[in-house]
Amino acid sequence: MLKGPTGCGKTRFVEHMASRLGLPLITVPCHEDITAADLVGRYLLQGGDTVWVDGPVTRAVRSGAICYLDEVVEARADSTVVIHPLADHRRELNLERLGERLVAPDSFMLVVSYNPGYQSVLKDLKQSTRQRMIGIEFDYPAGAIEASIVMTESGIDEPRARDLVKLAHAIRRLDKGTLPEVCSTRTLVSTARMMSEGLSARAAARVAMLQPLCDDAEILHGLCEVVHTYLSE
Amino acid sequence: MLKGPTGCGKTRFVEHMASRLGLPLITVPCHEDITAADLVGRYLLQGGDTVWVDGPVTRAVRSGAICYLDEVVEARADSTVVIHPLADHRRELNLERLGERLVAPDSFMLVVSYNPGYQSVLKDLKQSTRQRMIGIEFDYPAGAIEASIVMTESGIDEPRARDLVKLAHAIRRLDKGTLPEVCSTRTLVSTARMMSEGLSARAAARVAMLQPLCDDAEILHGLCEVVHTYLSE
Amino acid sequence: MLKGPTGCGKTRFVEHMASRLGLPLITVPCHEDITAADLVGRYLLQGGDTVWVDGPVTRAVRSGAICYLDEVVEARADSTVVIHPLADHRRELNLERLGERLVAPDSFMLVVSYNPGYQSVLKDLKQSTRQRMIGIEFDYPAGAIEASIVMTESGIDEPRARDLVKLAHAIRRLDKGTLPEVCSTRTLVSTARMMSEGLSARAAARVAMLQPLCDDAEILHGLCEVVHTYLSE
Amino acid sequence: MLKGPTGCGKTRFVEHMASRLGLPLITVPCHEDITAADLVGRYLLQGGDTVWVDGPVTRAVRSGAICYLDEVVEARADSTVVIHPLADHRRELNLERLGERLVAPDSFMLVVSYNPGYQSVLKDLKQSTRQRMIGIEFDYPAGAIEASIVMTESGIDEPRARDLVKLAHAIRRLDKGTLPEVCSTRTLVSTARMMSEGLSARAAARVAMLQPLCDDAEILHGLCEVVHTYLSE
Amino acid sequence: MLKGPTGCGKTRFVEHMASRLGLPLITVPCHEDITAADLVGRYLLQGGDTVWVDGPVTRAVRSGAICYLDEVVEARADSTVVIHPLADHRRELNLERLGERLVAPDSFMLVVSYNPGYQSVLKDLKQSTRQRMIGIEFDYPAGAIEASIVMTESGIDEPRARDLVKLAHAIRRLDKGTLPEVCSTRTLVSTARMMSEGLSARAAARVAMLQPLCDDAEILHGLCEVVHTYLSE
Amino acid sequence: MLKGPTGCGKTRFVEHMASRLGLPLITVPCHEDITAADLVGRYLLQGGDTVWVDGPVTRAVRSGAICYLDEVVEARADSTVVIHPLADHRRELNLERLGERLVAPDSFMLVVSYNPGYQSVLKDLKQSTRQRMIGIEFDYPAGAIEASIVMTESGIDEPRARDLVKLAHAIRRLDKGTLPEVCSTRTLVSTARMMSEGLSARAAARVAMLQPLCDDAEILHGLCEVVHTYLSE
Repeated sequence: MLKGPTGCGKTRFVEHMASRLGLPLITVPCHEDITAADLVGRYLLQGGDTVWVDGPVTRAVRSGAICYLDEVVEARADSTVVIHPLADHRRELNLERLGERLVAPDSFMLVVSYNPGYQSVLKDLKQSTRQRMIGIEFDYPAGAIEASIVMTESGIDEPRARDLVKLAHAIRRLDKGTLPEVCSTRTLVSTARMMSEGLSARAAARVAMLQPLCDDAEILHGLCEVVHTYLSE
Repeated sequence: MLKGPTGCGKTRFVEHMASRLGLPLITVPCHEDITAADLVGRYLLQGGDTVWVDGPVTRAVRSGAICYLDEVVEARADSTVVIHPLADHRRELNLERLGERLVAPDSFMLVVSYNPGYQSVLKDLKQSTRQRMIGIEFDYPAGAIEASIVMTESGIDEPRARDLVKLAHAIRRLDKGTLPEVCSTRTLVSTARMMSEGLSARAAARVAMLQPLCDDAEILHGLCEVVHTYLSE
Repeated sequence: MLKGPTGCGKTRFVEHMASRLGLPLITVPCHEDITAADLVGRYLLQGGDTVWVDGPVTRAVRSGAICYLDEVVEARADSTVVIHPLADHRRELNLERLGERLVAPDSFMLVVSYNPGYQSVLKDLKQSTRQRMIGIEFDYPAGAIEASIVMTESGIDEPRARDLVKLAHAIRRLDKGTLPEVCSTRTLVSTARMMSEGLSARAAARVAMLQPLCDDAEILHGLCEVVHTYLSE
Repeated sequence: MLKGPTGCGKTRFVEHMASRLGLPLITVPCHEDITAADLVGRYLLQGGDTVWVDGPVTRAVRSGAICYLDEVVEARADSTVVIHPLADHRRELNLERLGERLVAPDSFMLVVSYNPGYQSVLKDLKQSTRQRMIGIEFDYPAGAIEASIVMTESGIDEPRARDLVKLAHAIRRLDKGTLPEVCSTRTLVSTARMMSEGLSARAAARVAMLQPLCDDAEILHGLCEVVHTYLSE
Repeated sequence: MLKGPTGCGKTRFVEHMASRLGLPLITVPCHEDITAADLVGRYLLQGGDTVWVDGPVTRAVRSGAICYLDEVVEARADSTVVIHPLADHRRELNLERLGERLVAPDSFMLVVSYNPGYQSVLKDLKQSTRQRMIGIEFDYPAGAIEASIVMTESGIDEPRARDLVKLAHAIRRLDKGTLPEVCSTRTLVSTARMMSEGLSARAAARVAMLQPLCDDAEILHGLCEVVHTYLSE
Repeated sequence: MLKGPTGCGKTRFVEHMASRLGLPLITVPCHEDITAADLVGRYLLQGGDTVWVDGPVTRAVRSGAICYLDEVVEARADSTVVIHPLADHRRELNLERLGERLVAPDSFMLVVSYNPGYQSVLKDLKQSTRQRMIGIEFDYPAGAIEASIVMTESGIDEPRARDLVKLAHAIRRLDKGTLPEVCSTRTLVSTARMMSEGLSARAAARVAMLQPLCDDAEILHGLCEVVHTYLSE
């Protein structure tokens, strides 16, 4: 269970682990309309017959892959309950509609990620789901590391990367009430990419860091001033 | 991510860029009933078999086109989450139901537009979606430019075009509480077109600018007086 | 965009224009359950295959007909959004599920009607839809004209027609709070028809004008007295 | 449009008129789940093809029958909107999904019934539907007539029938707050039938008149005393 | 219409009457998801054709059986409206989708049961449904009879049966606020059965009478003391 | 009916009983989207025909297995009502859609589990369902037993197991308001497993006990201090 704000690197981490372990990675971006059937599988008509077609979770179990449920809180409770037998000592998947029960191979891993900031009374991981998981907290990387990430991903030089990170920290220090969310490492990287393609630092920050943060004209104006303080050109 | 009021030219801008870049443009007018399946594709019965048929987003990915989600906030969160892997460093599309994963060619572009004025607590772009985008703010064009647009699109002469723009500015200056939205460049153009087809300026403004703005008799009466101040005949 | 109370002649007007222009008229009475698919078309099973069948809007586009969405506010937002590309400069229809895009011929016209009185926060034409339209306001016809309509449609003589119209005006002058809606030209005509079939004016007004207006015993009693004041027998 | 409380004879009246006019009667008991498709028709699979099957309203139009929508307010707005073109001067039925438009023969009649007492803000006939109808108010028949109905339908003698009607009037005089609805002519008839089959008047009234009225023990006790006042044995 | 608390013997009564009358019994346990189609029937695909398959109510009508709708208030209004024509003088069933209308044979009987305690504003039998029924009130049987039922059903001796009944009466006397419902004859029987299988009276009462009543630790503790007062071992 | 907090061993208990009794175990993890059809069965298309396919409950009845509805309160009322005839003296299953009625063999057992802590007004077992069950309360095992479970399941030595249990008791003593739920035996076991794989006790407790409990930074900090008090390294 990977917890952390959007764009801090959860997905990247899972991709990295998968390649390190040499395991196939099956990602499911969760959303409100994902049903248990989308995860485990469904019957389709083929040649006039209804044929069962595995869903991503079932495929992951059969192939002993890493199954990654991205932004799992977006999915409705039902899908998470479906994975309970997979997530506890049973490590099995009930395919009620198929009347089959799969036992997961040792290599199979279930990874879920979510952003605690998004949780609400309506949308929350059930305790019975959480307690079947091991939790790892993620946050934006420390300054130096974040700067090096920005450099590697965009190709800009160190001083400009440092400035972007300083700017990000300034925005992240803002009172929670001001913004629904702060700028992520991802937005730093895309800002840096705009710069490496010739856009001025200020213009890049405006379109890639500020605009995604909010639509309120006043707040955007205030943020622009912050940008001008940290970015010279 | 193109932000701006209705009728200010967002769609025209995308069409222009598509032709400039010589890329095919696939537009999806978003609405509440658009499901992930409408975007990525679905199974259909053909010759007794269920055959997969690509949705517009999938077609855009395969053909490296510009995929334009018009009024994206109208769509439910689920459709936007579906495009996350396309919108970040992965640039890939998960077709869970097909069990396929497409990697987008370099020419593929994802453009979304919305009207910040329409957003609500219920309907809003998720931060995790926004932070995968670069944002460009649009507004009604400056007076001179808007007048020339009106002239080009309708064929009326400059003085009358200028009067229409002045009228529009007067209405746009009205207190936000009075009208849910102000008149757009689009309504200016359609007013001008009515004029070029012989309708008096005042009559044209009444049917093409005022009536679309609201149904309240009193407010309409007030707006008529504004029209009479700015349009002589 | 035709605005006006129920029974004031909006549909009759569209039928008249269609015959004057010699164009086919395709009417869609809108309601909550109309989906985008009902308007543009859907796949049906035929000989084991799924065959696309055009919806009324698509048929209207192909045949360059007048497409009339009656009581459009009854339909959910999604259907109106579907017609946006048809209603603006593009004049095209996106058939996502068919993967086709139709360009409307010049003769094609899109007409929508609705009753501003019915609009609510929940049900309302979106600004982005309204601003793609030209608006014409309708109201009950002036006394003399309404009387002549009643005569032509029912065959009763002028004095009795005049009395009915006077009665209608009296009821229409009632405080808005008393009745959800006032009696329409349509109900005047049906009252007159009952009379021409031998019913007394008072009895006809009771069943064709008052009963449809409300179910409240007290209010009905009050309205009866109004009827007796204006109709002698 | 027949208005009146449950069990006062609306359905009986329509059945009577149908036999008097020698017209077939097609009744549709309306309920929340009735869709436009249930009324006008739907496509069914036959021999691998989708074949259109008429709904009751369509059958009534084709055969020029009386179409009776029982308890129409139970149906959702959409079904009533579907009948608008049938209910006004057009007298036609749009079968959008079939792409056909039927014109009703002269003998076709549309009759709807409902209980004003059941209407609510949520469930109500739309004005645009009401104004397409002629309204007739029903109520429980006058004492003598109700007694004779009870006699004819059950075979009990006049004095006992009169007592039942007196009892009914006593209950109908009760304060509206006490009971959601009063006892109908229908319950009088079923009470009388129980008597003619040997049950005591009091026992019959208890099971056929009181129990259906409510479940509240105290109120039932009070009603029993009323019964004992009006029924000797 | 059988009214009474859960577990007081309503279903048993219907089963008894059916065997006494030598009529087949068709029971439908009602629930929120039961649709009109589940009751009257639906079309199924067979050999590529859609074939109509009768629902339980339709089967009961055709075979002149007793149709028992158990816990009818659980079903949504629509299903109950479907049976109206069956429940009044018409004694017929409209199979709209089949375009057929069945007349019920004399032996056909419609029995519904419900627990007045469960009714709510949301879920309630419509007056128009209730007034088509004859009502019989059920309650837990008198002490002696309940004891003999417990003995017959479980095989325990009279004194222990009497103690259980006394205990039940003590719990049933508790203030309504304390428990959502009291213990039923059914729970007495299952308690007695546990005893006849060797469990101590107190242990049996705890698992079969108390635990089903509530989950609140304090209340359960209080009830245990009541148990200890009435059951010696 | 097994009541108890998540992770206290309800499922393990059922698995144990099944193996002790030599009966097959059919588990259904319940969730909001489970319909009556998912439990009893549905029609599927095969070779162009609709073929009935049993659901898990039906399979359990036919094979005389133990049917275990895990977290039954998660399912909607309808599914539980479907099992009523199975849960009372009838011990039969109505397959309305199949028109079949199965009588359960003696070996058939119905077991449901739920967490009283999760119940709400919206989600609760109906009294009519509860009163058809025998209830057994579960809680976390006594200290010594819990420690031995932790040892057996993870292989860590007794002193460290005892420390973990002491820590768990400390957290379980916390005021209910602080945490939605406390740490379960399951989380103790997974913590111990992390330890036996080389993680320090404190680190293991943090990821396997604390992180799953909540996302609140402050509370997590407080819990860490508790951990440090009870776990030396």
